[in-house]
Amino acid sequence: MIQIIPLTLPIVKEGDDIANLICEELARKDLSLMDGDIVVIAHKIVSRSEGRTVDLSSVKPSFFAENLAKEICKDPRLVEIILRESKKIVRARKGLLIVETLHGFVCANAGVDQSNTPGHGKVTLLPVNPDASAERLRKKLFELTDKNVAVIISDTHGRPLRRGVINVAIGISGLKPLRNYAGERDLFGYVMSHTVVAVADLLSSAAALVIGQSSEAVPVAIIRGAHFLERGKGTGRDLIMPEEDDLFR
Amino acid sequence: MIQIIPLTLPIVKEGDDIANLICEELARKDLSLMDGDIVVIAHKIVSRSEGRTVDLSSVKPSFFAENLAKEICKDPRLVEIILRESKKIVRARKGLLIVETLHGFVCANAGVDQSNTPGHGKVTLLPVNPDASAERLRKKLFELTDKNVAVIISDTHGRPLRRGVINVAIGISGLKPLRNYAGERDLFGYVMSHTVVAVADLLSSAAALVIGQSSEAVPVAIIRGAHFLERGKGTGRDLIMPEEDDLFR
Repeated sequence: MIQIIPLTLPIVKEGDDIANLICEELARKDLSLMDGDIVVIAHKIVSRSEGRTVDLSSVKPSFFAENLAKEICKDPRLVEIILRESKKIVRARKGLLIVETLHGFVCANAGVDQSNTPGHGKVTLLPVNPDASAERLRKKLFELTDKNVAVIISDTHGRPLRRGVINVAIGISGLKPLRNYAGERDLFGYVMSHTVVAVADLLSSAAALVIGQSSEAVPVAIIRGAHFLERGKGTGRDLIMPEEDDLFR
Repeated sequence: MIQIIPLTLPIVKEGDDIANLICEELARKDLSLMDGDIVVIAHKIVSRSEGRTVDLSSVKPSFFAENLAKEICKDPRLVEIILRESKKIVRARKGLLIVETLHGFVCANAGVDQSNTPGHGKVTLLPVNPDASAERLRKKLFELTDKNVAVIISDTHGRPLRRGVINVAIGISGLKPLRNYAGERDLFGYVMSHTVVAVADLLSSAAALVIGQSSEAVPVAIIRGAHFLERGKGTGRDLIMPEEDDLFR
């Protein structure tokens, strides 16, 4: 059996130690981390702890951002921030800006978000390097608990073909994000040719069943009992499909 | 806390009663269904119980299927079956055929699969009407247990933009597949404008952490404790993005 344990944290501010907050909340619940746990963290609190928020009033939009903002009916300062976080515009329509972020994720508004950001007129950006953030948190959790866990930093993404957002992994430490079944036999002896499962995205979506679904602030979930997962090195970038390999594009 | 309980079933054959098999396995585990449980079932056993398997040797490919099969290096009989299950070819390349199925799902090979099908040279198709299958199973489970559960029939899909397959809901009964947060306030009072969460896909991906990950046959998962979900009517088709609304296309 797998368990998904929601953790309610106090509001995270710049400089806060999320690993510490996680351990404190677990102690309050009379729980502790176990080897093999997967700690899924909403990127927003990681961004906030790292000071990745911007006050819109401090932003001077470029001429290009001003024009684009007019065309798609968005705040020009927000558009300026999104463009700074992007390497490519994928779609621009009224109210919508889908870009490829500097990390390589294709998502709306480069992950720049006005919700769940304390302070009026402030927005939260994605962490500069979500894998490095995950690694730092995993090491800190090991220091504090002596337990080997994996850390996933997740974000909520829209997607082609299907309605509604789901959660995906943007930063990973201590876990192989893809599980390759190629060459293994199924129940009836048939050798599977090329099934690669995005386990880190499955874990992110499973965690989203408790993260942010409640009126309380639940930015962290512990997934316990997923013993089949392969430990080891892996990054959030491993999950990005290069455009030339994308069978749907 | 949410629990994901894996169920190991005997190999399902045509005519088998899956609702019964689920209750028997739960009893063996000293468990029983509870109101509010979500029962996620791999489509393959539903298809097999409904007799949706085809013996390749019984198929006579059309001239068009023969030609396409040559071009993409696939078995012409398999291509013939895929085409019969499709309303549109989305991509055809060497070894690859992405189509829109008769239901409207965009996926590889119209869900026609050679793995996990007992008998040599046989393939499994998707259920004819996965929503009707889910409804039938939900009602049967209610008859057997007097418990109100939701049923999701899930499939494994590749997707644009990201590597690896994840699980999605193709048939639903007793659950609203999309949860609309528009107009609700976040933690800091910010009114969210248009966040619609694909909860049925989150549940399918969460269940995939136990379904088919083991060497044993685990085709069913019970998800318990997801109390925030909205009960009510919904279908797998609600999750299909019409091409004209697809912001990524």
